[in-house]
Amino acid sequence: MFLDIYQKIRDEKDSILCIGLDPPPEEFSEKEPEDILNFCLKIVEDTSEYACAYKPNTQFLLFPLNLKHLRELNSKIHKEKSVSILDHKLSDIGSSNKSAIFWINKAKFDAFTFSPFSGNVRETIEIAHKYNLGVFVLTLMSNFESRWIQKDANLNGRPLFKEIAIRAENAQADGLVMGATDNVDEDDIRDVRKIVDNEVILLFPGIGAQGGNIPKIMKNSGNNILINVSRAIILDNDPKNKAREFYEIIGRYKRRYSTI
Amino acid sequence: MFLDIYQKIRDEKDSILCIGLDPPPEEFSEKEPEDILNFCLKIVEDTSEYACAYKPNTQFLLFPLNLKHLRELNSKIHKEKSVSILDHKLSDIGSSNKSAIFWINKAKFDAFTFSPFSGNVRETIEIAHKYNLGVFVLTLMSNFESRWIQKDANLNGRPLFKEIAIRAENAQADGLVMGATDNVDEDDIRDVRKIVDNEVILLFPGIGAQGGNIPKIMKNSGNNILINVSRAIILDNDPKNKAREFYEIIGRYKRRYSTI
Repeated sequence: MFLDIYQKIRDEKDSILCIGLDPPPEEFSEKEPEDILNFCLKIVEDTSEYACAYKPNTQFLLFPLNLKHLRELNSKIHKEKSVSILDHKLSDIGSSNKSAIFWINKAKFDAFTFSPFSGNVRETIEIAHKYNLGVFVLTLMSNFESRWIQKDANLNGRPLFKEIAIRAENAQADGLVMGATDNVDEDDIRDVRKIVDNEVILLFPGIGAQGGNIPKIMKNSGNNILINVSRAIILDNDPKNKAREFYEIIGRYKRRYSTI
Repeated sequence: MFLDIYQKIRDEKDSILCIGLDPPPEEFSEKEPEDILNFCLKIVEDTSEYACAYKPNTQFLLFPLNLKHLRELNSKIHKEKSVSILDHKLSDIGSSNKSAIFWINKAKFDAFTFSPFSGNVRETIEIAHKYNLGVFVLTLMSNFESRWIQKDANLNGRPLFKEIAIRAENAQADGLVMGATDNVDEDDIRDVRKIVDNEVILLFPGIGAQGGNIPKIMKNSGNNILINVSRAIILDNDPKNKAREFYEIIGRYKRRYSTI
């Protein structure tokens, strides 16, 4: 099961750092797909000592790369003892979700992100778990533009993101995605952590380029979390050094806020 | 502009039929990417007399194919005087959406579908329009599982899908996606048509395998629409004949309900 693999790697590496693989298209559009693949492979090679997970993003990788490239990337991530979470934001009708999950498994990802807009939270997680794939449900994102739909809209007297958290928990989601930015309050994190089991991973993007706040997360979210950094590491002149910096910052706050 | 191209092709071919390109993964997973591409090219070749648009779906095509394959598919669709709408359900933060739009343009699609869950409706449409790409905003989908979030949840005293339609109209969306199935009532179609301009395309998936109802759509939605059929055509033994059948059924209702 995905959660077991995550916990084992997290403990062995003493890391909850996830690195987003988002190679900027302008730099690669006139190059070969292999150049994009090699860029990602090099990031993994350089940073894997400090990272528990990688998060390749569909919007950056799935157009230029094909299945063979994706498998090669995921083999490298596994060789470096990390998990690979496809940031896919899957949100389609049943038959299309099934196809996506089939290919996500073929491409050797370990988990993927899922957007609940098409509703089928339980159905999607059930299929994913048959393949031993983990599912991270978007709950309250990092970008302010998402506020009207995720926080202002409501259902059953709750802001939509809490209703989503309840449904994700009931459907045995492996993780939830919560922004690390000011769009998400401390109370939001605490409330969601109360809704979901302590084993469920809270994945926080928004650190680095988006200005998110590491202590705010770590103070309120328990131990089963992933803190994602993308651009601030992969676009740095020295990704290895930058990954180490984030690893150390996280380590300091982990010792301060550890609940175990 | 996308809307002008759509209207010209629609009138020249006298067709509002859109064909979804969703090749089933089980049949192709052990084959070469070129086999999937050739399956799609053959569907386009066989059916283009009757189709105004094709809708390749990300969940079926973007894992096995790369940019070169996608460009070849879209060149064929254009050669057969149709438009190509990537059913991508894009829903990410700004920088990732920008990357997706960059690659969607590079791959020569004419338009894409967008899910409003991440909120940035206006921002995404503005960027897409700089590339002359059309944007179809998911509003009320064909699958019943989406009902709790799209119809039961509410904002500003309206069901969420109407709030989405208002925001899509204000942001100058080129189209809205509305299910053709029983999940969508006649009133829902009429209400959304009143919210958006008559020029805005209503794209209706759900005909064929999902059991949608053609007259219900055509009675309530005006002339600027696309009726999508996927599996019922592409998995038929004779896709050309099946496309002709749907073309003729649609033509009969068009004459009956024509508002021009």
